Amino acid sequence: MAGLAVAARAFSASASAGAGGVAMVQGASRGIGLEFVRQLLRRSDQGRVVATCRAPASAAELQKLKEEHAPGRLTVLPLDVTDESTIEAAAASIAETHGSLDLLINSTGILSIPNVIQPETTLSKVQKSSLLLAYEHMRPLLKVGGCSETGRGFSLVANMSARVSSIGDNGLGGWHSYRASKTALNQLTKTASIELGRKDNIACILLHPGTVDTDLSRPFQRNVPKDKLFMREFSVEKLLSIIDNVKKSDNGKFFAWDGQEIPW
Amino acid sequence: MAGLAVAARAFSASASAGAGGVAMVQGASRGIGLEFVRQLLRRSDQGRVVATCRAPASAAELQKLKEEHAPGRLTVLPLDVTDESTIEAAAASIAETHGSLDLLINSTGILSIPNVIQPETTLSKVQKSSLLLAYEHMRPLLKVGGCSETGRGFSLVANMSARVSSIGDNGLGGWHSYRASKTALNQLTKTASIELGRKDNIACILLHPGTVDTDLSRPFQRNVPKDKLFMREFSVEKLLSIIDNVKKSDNGKFFAWDGQEIPW
Repeated sequence: MAGLAVAARAFSASASAGAGGVAMVQGASRGIGLEFVRQLLRRSDQGRVVATCRAPASAAELQKLKEEHAPGRLTVLPLDVTDESTIEAAAASIAETHGSLDLLINSTGILSIPNVIQPETTLSKVQKSSLLLAYEHMRPLLKVGGCSETGRGFSLVANMSARVSSIGDNGLGGWHSYRASKTALNQLTKTASIELGRKDNIACILLHPGTVDTDLSRPFQRNVPKDKLFMREFSVEKLLSIIDNVKKSDNGKFFAWDGQEIPW
Repeated sequence: MAGLAVAARAFSASASAGAGGVAMVQGASRGIGLEFVRQLLRRSDQGRVVATCRAPASAAELQKLKEEHAPGRLTVLPLDVTDESTIEAAAASIAETHGSLDLLINSTGILSIPNVIQPETTLSKVQKSSLLLAYEHMRPLLKVGGCSETGRGFSLVANMSARVSSIGDNGLGGWHSYRASKTALNQLTKTASIELGRKDNIACILLHPGTVDTDLSRPFQRNVPKDKLFMREFSVEKLLSIIDNVKKSDNGKFFAWDGQEIPW
């Protein structure tokens, strides 16, 4: 019922959304997420960006970006993927302020599936992953977005995965748990893409940013050749170009930074 | 160091293991796991089976099977995949009694990756999944098994997955969390297969049993055609035939009950 109320409000507010669309970046306080916010703000003087992170007050870079841009272009909201109430509050706030979402980029480092991956859990008791919670709460906003304002004709969810998640492409082993968590993300995204693509005008894709020089990758950069270690500016430019050119028929696909499809 | 000690003991005990080999079935108190135990005991009068479950005392079917067979053919040990000390104790007990393992069948219903799939977890802090713990503790036993006694020439780890774990084969959506947990299992198995296959004479495969009439599948049987709902006897016969015929070059593959490979 809460979802329906949000949808109704979202729809009425959508008409005044203006050109450029509304993009939300989840996990925006640093690394690739922060760079997405920076480039999305730079590429248009009208597009609006909602950046979420756990603690907006201590996200200095986001606060700086907010000051550098016209009022209303960047909204920073608290969102902790493990706390449903914060997802719900963020959705309500976006509905109120923007009325819709055209693009949702999930850039949180590690996937959360609380209570799913435990042996005691029976099928009927499986709890929702935080990703599913995010879909549930943002869906009414995505449903009314993605239309004439962006020219895409549908809303897009872009989840940051990584090539190491590919089972078919796994030739070296290692990184067991990180691989498995991103492989699970791939399956969740594919499953959601079927449901959202069928019922609503929303597509979901997975992206591999390459090995990017961030805090997350730093412990693993030793064996990466210099020309394969991307600056985040380069990687995000490439990924935004994929996002710009994605077609509805790409729903559920997994793309590397260079546009190549990655096998499951 | 504990692992090395186990390996040394295992090797000395291995010579007296006798024909038929030693198979361990994890998650053996009911369903497909229990049926594996039943059929492994029936197909040879010498092979020995180690059945593990959380509470052996209340596993009436296993206790009954134990009484029905010659002393020493079936050992029932407590093992809780979320409690490393029980995995360690089971490995030590198997080393003492049997000295080696030729076959390890993981039939636990749901995968456990404690603390992996949480957003706070940084790459360097990722904890080991229970599956990795099981590999670590059983590896010295598998390393010295699988040789002349079974005719296979290598030890085998067979993990029970399910076709719904396939991302490429996911055409209908739904079952989000169950799919994702089994997809993560596929990746963990593939990753382990690379490491174990490279360093030791051990192969790992994934198996899809079909939709089998068990407690686990009961809530989902409504839409399964009668002729596609297998009795566990039929499914396990088929899976054992795959296990019997597996080659070292099948390391890391995912087979359905009918021997067909399933895409990732």
